[in-house]
Amino acid sequence: MTVEKEIALRTERINAVLENYLPKEEGYQKRLLEAMNYSVRAGGKRLRPMLMQESFLLFGGTGRVIEPFLAAIEWIHTYSLVHDDLPAMDNDEYRRGKKTTHAVYGEAMGILAGDALLNYAFETASLAFEEAPADPAVGKAFRILACKAGAYGMAGGQAVDVESELDGSLPMTEERLEFIYRLKTCALMEASMEIGAVLAGASAKEQEVMGQIAGKVGMAFQIQDDILDLTSTLEVLGKPIGSDEKNRKATYVALHGMERAKEEVERLSGEAVQLLEGLGKEDGFLKELIRYLIHREK
Amino acid sequence: MTVEKEIALRTERINAVLENYLPKEEGYQKRLLEAMNYSVRAGGKRLRPMLMQESFLLFGGTGRVIEPFLAAIEWIHTYSLVHDDLPAMDNDEYRRGKKTTHAVYGEAMGILAGDALLNYAFETASLAFEEAPADPAVGKAFRILACKAGAYGMAGGQAVDVESELDGSLPMTEERLEFIYRLKTCALMEASMEIGAVLAGASAKEQEVMGQIAGKVGMAFQIQDDILDLTSTLEVLGKPIGSDEKNRKATYVALHGMERAKEEVERLSGEAVQLLEGLGKEDGFLKELIRYLIHREK
Repeated sequence: MTVEKEIALRTERINAVLENYLPKEEGYQKRLLEAMNYSVRAGGKRLRPMLMQESFLLFGGTGRVIEPFLAAIEWIHTYSLVHDDLPAMDNDEYRRGKKTTHAVYGEAMGILAGDALLNYAFETASLAFEEAPADPAVGKAFRILACKAGAYGMAGGQAVDVESELDGSLPMTEERLEFIYRLKTCALMEASMEIGAVLAGASAKEQEVMGQIAGKVGMAFQIQDDILDLTSTLEVLGKPIGSDEKNRKATYVALHGMERAKEEVERLSGEAVQLLEGLGKEDGFLKELIRYLIHREK
Repeated sequence: MTVEKEIALRTERINAVLENYLPKEEGYQKRLLEAMNYSVRAGGKRLRPMLMQESFLLFGGTGRVIEPFLAAIEWIHTYSLVHDDLPAMDNDEYRRGKKTTHAVYGEAMGILAGDALLNYAFETASLAFEEAPADPAVGKAFRILACKAGAYGMAGGQAVDVESELDGSLPMTEERLEFIYRLKTCALMEASMEIGAVLAGASAKEQEVMGQIAGKVGMAFQIQDDILDLTSTLEVLGKPIGSDEKNRKATYVALHGMERAKEEVERLSGEAVQLLEGLGKEDGFLKELIRYLIHREK
């Protein structure tokens, strides 16, 4: 089976888990629940839950304790897109060819649906306490999720990114850009791979290594995103190319040039795979997935 | 000591706990952290943490496991105000005589600061896992917090409230208004009192009764709010009176008249106190606090 088919199969399985946890569209707050579900169903490859699931399997995880967290990480990723698309932020009417949440449900409901999805992530994850009420690993997973999503994780990266765009006087340095990428993109991937490991009973050292791998994968993934924005085509990418340049967005390619960007993707990718091999586990699909993510063409 | 002085003393003690958990304003995301702290420090009486603390004491709770939750419930209350004030929502430039968060930091940062505060609530609460890693009560408290704040709690109530204001064709029925109050106002109070009880080791039955008390207190509190909006003065209330009428907001008073509103406050207040007495605990300050909240003049 090709890696694309393997991924499609896993996406399908994860979508089934997600559907299981999505709220029923009923009650006075029906429209809010519809807006939440619309946002989640608008799709995506479910990479973060996939990384989590594969990390869980890598360390021999079994049982359903992982499932609420698979959903939770996707809710958090989704809420961040919903709020990113708002008029006061990137003001996008379309994402992946579909109307964005606020474009369909209005701005107020876009804000509230994002809020409710973020909250629902913790609500869903907290179901794992019922699965394993006295297992300290669940509390630990919870803390990783919360920390990597917040002001010292994804939300912090978004804030610095937004500030850099709004305030032209802030110079985009190498360190600042790395900070944004590390928080905005890498943090949720780190959460995914660390939570998978922790819930499968990995040691603190193993958790740390998984975090390092995810950090490298996330960074390479983001730089590859910058590269594709310049080199791909509308047909392949499914969105207008050159949008970073148009929005005068500082990217790794803009700062360091295409050649160094490509080298950096290779370097990070090699390091991630090396760290993974160093764990001495039967790595199943994870290595392939990482290589694919980093070298993808869309 | 008067009840006002008792409350002021407790507010001060809670503020000290909150300050302990507020983020340091440093790093690239300094402005986000400043906006978060600004929102929290803009103040308020800290009623939710106060209800939580008193419920904890009612059931003989000791130790510091409650503290992260005292902070978390206030972060959630604060984020809801920050997002409520946004231009796409109530569009308020001032709250309690101070500039609102988006008025100071801009709309994008207002959205992100709210997001980050909501997330920070779960981040802060998850510190309790370090205090008591294998205590199932912490997981239970976590789940209460998440459920009461989300689409089936506060956020759900806000969504229905916003929808009712935007869509004039939706008739405001008694049931719909009660639903909004129950979710928007009561849910966080229920969370406060239930979490206090659970962390102190209360039984499931006791937790349920505390939820019922909080539901009645919250409902009476909200109706009293409607009454004060019509009967108080600018000087006493610290904000323009008659604002509900101006905004054509459906309230309990608008729907049922002033007389019935006042009767309802009395009825709910009496029932709450009766339930509290029925628990057969030495109720310390909680009964006084409840009576004060419901009969307050501002």
